[in-house]
Amino acid sequence: MTSDASRDPRRAGLSRRRFFGLAGAGTAGVLAAGAAGGVIGHATAADPTAAGTAAATDAVPFTGDHQAGIVTPAQDRLHFVAFDVITDSRDDLVEMLQAWTAAARRMTAGQDAGPVGAVDGGQYAPPDDTGEAIGLPASGLTLTIGFGPTLFTAADGTDRFGIAGRRPEPLAELPSFPGDALDPARSGGDLCVQACANDPQVAVHAVRNLSRLGAGVVSVRWSQLGFGRTSSTSSAQATPRNLFGFKDGTDNLKSENGSAVERFVWVADGDPGADWLAGGSYVVTRRIRMRIEPWDTSTLAEQEQTIGRTKGAGAPLGQQAEFDPVDFTVRAGTGPAIPENSHVFLAHPTNSGTAILRRGYSFVDGSDGLGRLDAGLFFIAYERNPETGFVQVQKNLRMDAMNEYIQHTSSAVFACPPGISGPDDWWGRALFS
Amino acid sequence: MTSDASRDPRRAGLSRRRFFGLAGAGTAGVLAAGAAGGVIGHATAADPTAAGTAAATDAVPFTGDHQAGIVTPAQDRLHFVAFDVITDSRDDLVEMLQAWTAAARRMTAGQDAGPVGAVDGGQYAPPDDTGEAIGLPASGLTLTIGFGPTLFTAADGTDRFGIAGRRPEPLAELPSFPGDALDPARSGGDLCVQACANDPQVAVHAVRNLSRLGAGVVSVRWSQLGFGRTSSTSSAQATPRNLFGFKDGTDNLKSENGSAVERFVWVADGDPGADWLAGGSYVVTRRIRMRIEPWDTSTLAEQEQTIGRTKGAGAPLGQQAEFDPVDFTVRAGTGPAIPENSHVFLAHPTNSGTAILRRGYSFVDGSDGLGRLDAGLFFIAYERNPETGFVQVQKNLRMDAMNEYIQHTSSAVFACPPGISGPDDWWGRALFS
Repeated sequence: MTSDASRDPRRAGLSRRRFFGLAGAGTAGVLAAGAAGGVIGHATAADPTAAGTAAATDAVPFTGDHQAGIVTPAQDRLHFVAFDVITDSRDDLVEMLQAWTAAARRMTAGQDAGPVGAVDGGQYAPPDDTGEAIGLPASGLTLTIGFGPTLFTAADGTDRFGIAGRRPEPLAELPSFPGDALDPARSGGDLCVQACANDPQVAVHAVRNLSRLGAGVVSVRWSQLGFGRTSSTSSAQATPRNLFGFKDGTDNLKSENGSAVERFVWVADGDPGADWLAGGSYVVTRRIRMRIEPWDTSTLAEQEQTIGRTKGAGAPLGQQAEFDPVDFTVRAGTGPAIPENSHVFLAHPTNSGTAILRRGYSFVDGSDGLGRLDAGLFFIAYERNPETGFVQVQKNLRMDAMNEYIQHTSSAVFACPPGISGPDDWWGRALFS
Repeated sequence: MTSDASRDPRRAGLSRRRFFGLAGAGTAGVLAAGAAGGVIGHATAADPTAAGTAAATDAVPFTGDHQAGIVTPAQDRLHFVAFDVITDSRDDLVEMLQAWTAAARRMTAGQDAGPVGAVDGGQYAPPDDTGEAIGLPASGLTLTIGFGPTLFTAADGTDRFGIAGRRPEPLAELPSFPGDALDPARSGGDLCVQACANDPQVAVHAVRNLSRLGAGVVSVRWSQLGFGRTSSTSSAQATPRNLFGFKDGTDNLKSENGSAVERFVWVADGDPGADWLAGGSYVVTRRIRMRIEPWDTSTLAEQEQTIGRTKGAGAPLGQQAEFDPVDFTVRAGTGPAIPENSHVFLAHPTNSGTAILRRGYSFVDGSDGLGRLDAGLFFIAYERNPETGFVQVQKNLRMDAMNEYIQHTSSAVFACPPGISGPDDWWGRALFS
């Protein structure tokens, strides 16, 4: 196959764009279409954590100490998918993870998942790529894998793949929280892949081709599309607005704050499971339905008191500008300017005692049959330990005034291994070796 | 209010971007985020039908002979919504249509739907805009309204608004077709609004604010998000790919072909309902689920025989390049190069005897609980008469080889009035006057 590869540009790994010769003037529109996904400032090729200089069309490096898609400056579009593993064969699972890694390596570089035209001219075999991203550039695609608790020990207690003993203690089902309305069918999962890109077609293409490669080994459990990143993960990115109309993520952990990222995001030597998870992280996802209609009929004052910031500038209440420091001692009238049951008060590291790296997206999934938009925030948070990360923050939000306007409808947690170290590495190697 | 307007920049209609002073360097990211929705080539400000020169951030004119969003070069993102009217009051309905028109006029110009800060400082009133598009440019937003058959005569036969006699005969429920699997809850509707933009947040914001303004008068019946326009409506646009991985819309009606557009798209004097509908059109929507997994396991040869074009270049079978003329007389082996049950053969104007203006979008709505992606094409077609447009084409597709891979899951038809003529005009004026 090596000699084939050197002759066949598809196998030699040229980009989708170059192979199909679509860079000519007549098709510039499609290229631009893929190019302009919505956000500047994702990683440069040289340094995936340095923001602000790369074009939205560029590739983000697939290899590194950490997986891309965590501190990588947030791209603007998401397709997140959770899989059930439907085989008991460890060999089949490992083989699929190796095939996924190879395809992810290609797709994040802007290539197809495999040759579109089969060697026999397509008479007897399906294409090795589904084709809808032909002509589109890499678009900042990152693919980030995670392993759920049920991969280690199935719901019925079975140790299907001989890795039950390697589950790190913090990788466990999350506790239930007051107000949860979780749909089991779109919660949990044995594996997850977070696909982020600046073009939704590129993200969707990646998830679809991984699903295709996993036929017979995995089955899609649930998937979620998102748009309009609701957090900045780099100080070079402007703060976006969520569907409450407020700036979101002003005080998020930023990739430039290396010491905080080390402390709160990456699993370190000595942590549980560090033999295979050091340099990795945990991801918690929560599909948070927003009660759009009651929110839209609440007064501006109530909205601002609920959040703890102004709607226009995004300034902390009692301050003038977005990045003015949050000061909980400032008074307004007879009480604190930032109410003690506001979201900012309760979620702020000062009061929650911890920090998480948020990386969520807005969603609108049509309507709910009762005349309401099925919309909200697909919350994604990375942390070194779910117990001292998301769970600790969420417990502190018990009295959050925002709870009146939201409902958590799905929940999942996964352990995300460290980055791919080189050409022979594959997703899960340290865990399965 | 006129004097207020001259003093208050929000009321004077400055852009969202200018009012909030977000154009400075520190927030360039948010602006760019909105700017880069994905596609070049929508209308210029001067001529909404001339493509290829405007930026994806620009505004498309709201007024004109025809509604924008039909022959306007297709933007890359869609939020389509259908409403039930929940009142029997003609006055309330008319008042809402007037408020919608005013808000649509503002939002398509890149302004908020109304002042974000209420005059009283927000103590007693909700904001008149929900805020999530603050800082985002117009992004090519078009809002296109349509009236469903049930607006004229309710399902129970009632003439709620005194317009039953004005229903044009072609505005009727579509016939059922073999293989239809329509979900009534996401079919039909009294009113529709098609929101297209180059930034999904701008499209979502527009639909949400119209829903908010319609509280008590309308209720969302269903809504659909889409991405990656699957047709070109201008010859200046490159042909995109649908989720089958094939170029879609190569031979679509293009806005530059004025005589065909006049013949097949716009309702003309003398047509049924022309007293209020001349210069308008009909829109048919079909949510077409694609059976992604079986498609992905079919051979390249079968895929190409099903479509009638090559997957790589998009050339008609038997030809070399995408825009080579479709020639049904070319033979390959013992049969025609383009099989007589291929989609291209049956849908082509030569064989269907008619033409429609397609303006659809891809969708992925998560998964279906059976391990399959709930994905496909949200088909949108504009035509002068549904009977001689969509229905005639669809009848001709009865033996289409593609039917094995698709299923229609929702259906709707609406009559779209002509364009807004000036500052005092409003959506539906000719119908309700």
